[in-house]
Amino acid sequence: MRLAVPLENLIDQLIKLPTIGPKTAQRLALYILKLPEEESRQLAEAIITAREKVFPCSACGYLTDVDPCSICRDEKRDGSILCVAEEASDIIAIERTGFRGRYFVLNKDFHLMGDNRLEDLNLKPFVNKLASGEIKEVVLALNPDIDGEVMARFLTGIARQHDVKISRLAHGLPVGGDIEFADEITLRKALEGRKEL
Amino acid sequence: MRLAVPLENLIDQLIKLPTIGPKTAQRLALYILKLPEEESRQLAEAIITAREKVFPCSACGYLTDVDPCSICRDEKRDGSILCVAEEASDIIAIERTGFRGRYFVLNKDFHLMGDNRLEDLNLKPFVNKLASGEIKEVVLALNPDIDGEVMARFLTGIARQHDVKISRLAHGLPVGGDIEFADEITLRKALEGRKEL
Repeated sequence: MRLAVPLENLIDQLIKLPTIGPKTAQRLALYILKLPEEESRQLAEAIITAREKVFPCSACGYLTDVDPCSICRDEKRDGSILCVAEEASDIIAIERTGFRGRYFVLNKDFHLMGDNRLEDLNLKPFVNKLASGEIKEVVLALNPDIDGEVMARFLTGIARQHDVKISRLAHGLPVGGDIEFADEITLRKALEGRKEL
Repeated sequence: MRLAVPLENLIDQLIKLPTIGPKTAQRLALYILKLPEEESRQLAEAIITAREKVFPCSACGYLTDVDPCSICRDEKRDGSILCVAEEASDIIAIERTGFRGRYFVLNKDFHLMGDNRLEDLNLKPFVNKLASGEIKEVVLALNPDIDGEVMARFLTGIARQHDVKISRLAHGLPVGGDIEFADEITLRKALEGRKEL
């Protein structure tokens, strides 16, 4: 059966989004049709405005609508510790821990198995930060996967040229996790990194 | 920490949608920021266009961008059987079964426990259809819950004034379901409606 064309088009657009399957897309589309016109317009405008006004901070790469971003402008931050992450969403998660250093976001979907190359990353602001001499420690907050490993080695190579400590987030059992269900690599890392009590 | 205002606004808008929690909203918003500008615009426009152009068919209540809808205009449909459903999304599901009768959609979120009243439903097209004399059977495809029960009785009262058969979708075990996990009401209905082999 054919759905109304504008409805089908909306479903097609929604399916392109991550985590949205055909059933959810249909449900969302039918819900949007029932919204007061004003509310559906607000949703559409929020999409356009966010896409237009938000960009990576020129200093750290975090997403912002003012350059430099609020984190870079925050003078209470500890400028001696620089946390390097792959994505802005990682920063949002790290901020929730209470970490109050500074950041550098790589902002690149780097699937090293695919077409992306390390050379394509804009690392100039990172190198400038290192050269400034303010940084005492670089914390690599990279995902615990193969891409993260390759990236960590690459960035370590750059950071080693400066007098900084380089660290990486600890691997181990997630809090609330179950040893029984931990994969062997995680468990081995947890053993290697065991802490004396 | 503060997110960029347009980003926060987009997340707030997305959270209002069904099935979208805070984490998914954030993920969708960050994804939208990374879309090519053209694609984010297409998404926004699909929302506005669908909301503007799609409306309930004046004859059957199904969602359409042309009045009457494609189902009402389809002359191959069996006009003697009328399926009554609560929502357009129910029609989409029923169409997949191969049912080729006609429909009437109530188009009302009727939570009878809440403020909606049966009197608020626009049943005029339904009564007109009954009065036309073309209909031989009314199939009530209402949800198997309390609202559905109340609604079924109410509509049966109206349909009884005409010379039509009235039926309701069968209750029973869902195909692929497990007797062990069926609730007692479903199982009782399945027993009552058992079929001789």
